[in-house]
Amino acid sequence: MTTVGILGGGQLARMLALSGAPLGLRFLVMDNVADACAGQFAPMVVGDYRDETTLAEFASRVDVATFDFENVPSESAQWLSERVQVFPNPRALATAQDRLAEKTLFQKLGIPVPPFAAIDTREQLDAAIAQIGTPCILKTRRLGYDGKGQFRIKTTADADAAWDALGAQASKVGLILEGFVHFERELSVVAVRGRDGEFRTWPLTENWHVDGVLSASLAPARVDSALAQVAYEHARKLGEALDYVGVFALELFCRDGELLANELAPRVHNSGHWTIEGSETSQFQNHLRAVLGLPLGDTRMVGLACMLNWIGEMPSATPVLAEPGGHWHDYGKLPRAGRKVGHATVRADSAQALATSLQRVGEGLGRQAQVDPVIAALARS
Amino acid sequence: MTTVGILGGGQLARMLALSGAPLGLRFLVMDNVADACAGQFAPMVVGDYRDETTLAEFASRVDVATFDFENVPSESAQWLSERVQVFPNPRALATAQDRLAEKTLFQKLGIPVPPFAAIDTREQLDAAIAQIGTPCILKTRRLGYDGKGQFRIKTTADADAAWDALGAQASKVGLILEGFVHFERELSVVAVRGRDGEFRTWPLTENWHVDGVLSASLAPARVDSALAQVAYEHARKLGEALDYVGVFALELFCRDGELLANELAPRVHNSGHWTIEGSETSQFQNHLRAVLGLPLGDTRMVGLACMLNWIGEMPSATPVLAEPGGHWHDYGKLPRAGRKVGHATVRADSAQALATSLQRVGEGLGRQAQVDPVIAALARS
Ligand SMILES: Nc1ncnc2c1ncn2[C@@H]1O[C@H](COP(=O)(O)OP(=O)(O)O)[C@@H](O)[C@H]1O
Ligand SMILES: Nc1ncnc2c1ncn2[C@@H]1O[C@H](COP(=O)(O)OP(=O)(O)O)[C@@H](O)[C@H]1O
Ligand SMILES: [Mg+2]
Ligand SMILES: [Mg+2]
Repeated sequence: MTTVGILGGGQLARMLALSGAPLGLRFLVMDNVADACAGQFAPMVVGDYRDETTLAEFASRVDVATFDFENVPSESAQWLSERVQVFPNPRALATAQDRLAEKTLFQKLGIPVPPFAAIDTREQLDAAIAQIGTPCILKTRRLGYDGKGQFRIKTTADADAAWDALGAQASKVGLILEGFVHFERELSVVAVRGRDGEFRTWPLTENWHVDGVLSASLAPARVDSALAQVAYEHARKLGEALDYVGVFALELFCRDGELLANELAPRVHNSGHWTIEGSETSQFQNHLRAVLGLPLGDTRMVGLACMLNWIGEMPSATPVLAEPGGHWHDYGKLPRAGRKVGHATVRADSAQALATSLQRVGEGLGRQAQVDPVIAALARS
Repeated sequence: MTTVGILGGGQLARMLALSGAPLGLRFLVMDNVADACAGQFAPMVVGDYRDETTLAEFASRVDVATFDFENVPSESAQWLSERVQVFPNPRALATAQDRLAEKTLFQKLGIPVPPFAAIDTREQLDAAIAQIGTPCILKTRRLGYDGKGQFRIKTTADADAAWDALGAQASKVGLILEGFVHFERELSVVAVRGRDGEFRTWPLTENWHVDGVLSASLAPARVDSALAQVAYEHARKLGEALDYVGVFALELFCRDGELLANELAPRVHNSGHWTIEGSETSQFQNHLRAVLGLPLGDTRMVGLACMLNWIGEMPSATPVLAEPGGHWHDYGKLPRAGRKVGHATVRADSAQALATSLQRVGEGLGRQAQVDPVIAALARS
């Protein structure tokens, strides 16, 4: 009997446990809150990620550990990895936790990135704005997620406001200034790498964000296969450079038909949720297969899939469940503004059929704005 | 928040809970043993199915109740149904628990059955053998499963041995004598009926039993669609007659191209396990959708699927996981002779590809005998 430990008890841990149960696995989830939603289907230990007593209990009860939460302190990951196998390895985790480290790695591997500069002081911010130009974005290097810890600088006049908002973070989590990319679209590669280095990706996914939070994903992305190949190659290089084991996602901007790397998520990823029903093997099961050294599952998809995120509160399930390819995912969370509480996946065998389904879902839920960009993308050849 | 109570905590309850979690459901499982495998992913109450204290606790904590175990005493089901909604209804459960009642219903609905007779005494056994002829099978009316509680009578000389084996059951659970059917194949319809009477079936499934226990299933069954339609029609009539809500399976013999009904399983069924990966909506999720009055999910399948049962102990997972369409289901049970401990599903887009995958799995596991009949069926047009 193998017990997989998961640091973080949110929806990713929950979906990992649900998809790993058929492999005969047991799970133990560690989270700093007792009502983390993964706890509805897996036993938990509750405590701070830095608390060695809790970490020690966790380590003593698991055979291998992995992450639902990418911002587990890297010292905790390191401490754990000296006691139990941890995948992905702490170095990969640490790199992906730091926007400066990951962008530096992208560059080193020849993966194009937007212009960026590390910012420690107000003077450096001014110099970097002058160099990179406007618009640009000031971001925290660490601990940002779902668009949090970002400030958009439209003109040099916004530098004061940006520093007011984030300057205090410079000495804590670091800051980075990035050139704003006027992208045509956002894409992501969800990839898996086995313990033996075997590498697979799911079809490239197109993503739409609202206020920095993922709103919808479409797979396969409506781009030509040469572009998709470039994206897969970027992901492959990254996986190798980090000696990565498990699933990760590489977020990309596509501008003038060229790919620029945005960030690396060292875990199963929201833009891969469609793989549960849309692919032969889900990202969740393949992450576990990788972590356990089992053969990786087939990542091919049948037809097309669109994932719609539910933020804040769950809408009515009925319009989605009434669709032939409609699948519902309620994470069992309490509603809260800005919180990811669930998603839906709609699968279909043709772009036309998917667009029709999405149209009905959008109307049924009064969420036309959420489905419209996906429907427009489906109308592209 | 809706909590679904499941009476019985085996693999069916486990798979119900895993497939119902995405609907935002909570589960409570009742079983008479504390280590029932569903308890690994759902909270449990432990106690005898006849114990009113346990039943009362169970009833007080659930919004709706259903079954993993079809032999829950019908009085318990009735008692529960006076306190909480129970699906399927206790009458449907009671009918399916009794081979005499179900065969009588089949006949009443014009569904052909093998010859049968109720047996209360040794004299009736002799008379029934004379009337039905040999070979025939003496079975307990109630509580039989996986071929248990059956005695095959090859010649009249076996009547003594049959009575020795099962005669004592006549006054406890009743006996029935059935003509032995020299079938070409065994088939099952797995069907779902909603609270509003909406009825759907998955594609007809072909089944192979070894020693009375399911060994392999293939979907869709390699039969012509007119025969499949007859099977679906039988299931539809049964569902209506019983005012059934949820998933059930109708087991059929096919002899000389004609269908004879064997038995009705008032629950998700082993021959429907392939629907987890092989169909847009699994039998597990559709059972829950039906029980909760949600829209039923699409039952169409893509390609073909074969389910292989693991009895007694789990074989190595590797040969199955290495197949492109290979999926593993370890129920988390301890090994024990005759026990259903897991299954695998192999999916493919063509009969040829499925046969090739099964061939490799059979060789990899040294289980050629288990896959051979399926491969032979795939070679039929
Ligand atoms: N440099 C940029 N140019 C344009 N849009 C950006 C840029 N950086 C972030 N964004 C937008 O904000 C979203 C969230 O930013 P991201 O850096 O991915 O942070 P998070 O960790 O919160 O996902 C991106 O998906 C994109 O829509
Ligand atoms: N009348 C019969 N003729 C031929 N085979 C039978 C007959 N009854 C049962 N069998 C064989 O035994 C298996 C199990 O019997 P069944 O009546 O379905 O009981 P169980 O409740 O154990 O599934 C059947 O699937 C079939 O292979
Ligand atoms: Mg991002
Ligand atoms: Mg049977």
